Amino acid sequence: MIDLYSWATPNGQKVHILLEELGLEYTAHPVNIEAGDQFSNDFLAISPNNKIPAITDTEGPPRGDGRPFSLFESGAILLYLAEKAGRFLPADATSRYEVYQWLMFQVGSIGPMLGQAHHFRVYAPAPIQYAISRYTNEARRLYSVMDSKLRMTNFLAGDEYTIVDIATFPWTRQWKNQGLELEEFPNVRRWHHEIAMRPAVERGVQVLTSVRPAQMDQSAREVLFGATQFARR
Amino acid sequence: MIDLYSWATPNGQKVHILLEELGLEYTAHPVNIEAGDQFSNDFLAISPNNKIPAITDTEGPPRGDGRPFSLFESGAILLYLAEKAGRFLPADATSRYEVYQWLMFQVGSIGPMLGQAHHFRVYAPAPIQYAISRYTNEARRLYSVMDSKLRMTNFLAGDEYTIVDIATFPWTRQWKNQGLELEEFPNVRRWHHEIAMRPAVERGVQVLTSVRPAQMDQSAREVLFGATQFARR
Repeated sequence: MIDLYSWATPNGQKVHILLEELGLEYTAHPVNIEAGDQFSNDFLAISPNNKIPAITDTEGPPRGDGRPFSLFESGAILLYLAEKAGRFLPADATSRYEVYQWLMFQVGSIGPMLGQAHHFRVYAPAPIQYAISRYTNEARRLYSVMDSKLRMTNFLAGDEYTIVDIATFPWTRQWKNQGLELEEFPNVRRWHHEIAMRPAVERGVQVLTSVRPAQMDQSAREVLFGATQFARR
Repeated sequence: MIDLYSWATPNGQKVHILLEELGLEYTAHPVNIEAGDQFSNDFLAISPNNKIPAITDTEGPPRGDGRPFSLFESGAILLYLAEKAGRFLPADATSRYEVYQWLMFQVGSIGPMLGQAHHFRVYAPAPIQYAISRYTNEARRLYSVMDSKLRMTNFLAGDEYTIVDIATFPWTRQWKNQGLELEEFPNVRRWHHEIAMRPAVERGVQVLTSVRPAQMDQSAREVLFGATQFARR
């Protein structure tokens, strides 16, 4: 049984979607990052970087010692669950490394840089033009890289739907907050809409949404972006 | 034989160090990102995100079809080379996932966020206090996460030296440009100095330094950070 500690954000949704695609039994526990739950000792014990998502698997990994096992970092969790289930991660060597490189592209560029675009466009207390341009231009460049790849293959790591698409899709739901129009990137748009219609994806993006407030209030802004955001409590 | 396309930056040095540690035969080809080499069609064919490093392995992966194989994204290249050589990546399931999670922490947080701290402290054309504080505080938080881990284990993913240490070490050489003092983090300092003294690491950080200009000139700043930085030429 998988215990999932998460919140309805793109990095959380990656794991929600994969669990839904795999049909694995899991319990979703909300970690309200807007209220500071990510700094509790219980959560830090399994996620020392105080970020969602994290999981505990009561059975542990395949070919492991059978003891409960915890894991943080969404990219690592996707690899773990896909390897455990033997799905959405191709078995042949060449295709597997294709997945690794595009997964790293998501983890190292798509997530952090689109996150910065969103931050300076939506969350920063005052508009800073240099930063808005820097990250919006980088967002546009990253979508262009994806668009070129998706002109050649159906999905990001080739013609198969893999954990790379699951990892990247939730970030592309926020294109407006990144200052972009999906119409600029016809291949990304085709791919995005195809994935959005998968029943497991429709379910995955809904997980924990009912407990996340629709609007972020001032106290949540302080926890996430204010002077105390870096503190361990 | 490995052909390495790289530049003397932290993401390049990760791969230089691992190749030196493994004693694999390789040729280092400079990709002068300060002159725009990363936008050449030849380079984009193997690194569509126009970032260094990338490799071509004339033999391809183990259990592959034996054809030459190219890979981009430093995190994926480290996994590839470590799996190929069977070193610096533990074989047992639990330890391997420990490596995955801390490698993703490097790829998704250490690299991008320390990179932003460096950018706003050193490269941005004018100081922007909000951004400098945001990223310097995040850098301090990330070093604290590492320091807590290194209080418990000798290396970042456990008591063994792995690709996680190789991936993270080059970023911690730039602590001054990230606005930090290594003295604030005694366990990171101990770990940093121990790694810095490894002969393969000493060689790895020197690779391609002779072709990188010591000072960045105005034309290099324009290529890397100016209005045309996002263009494909």
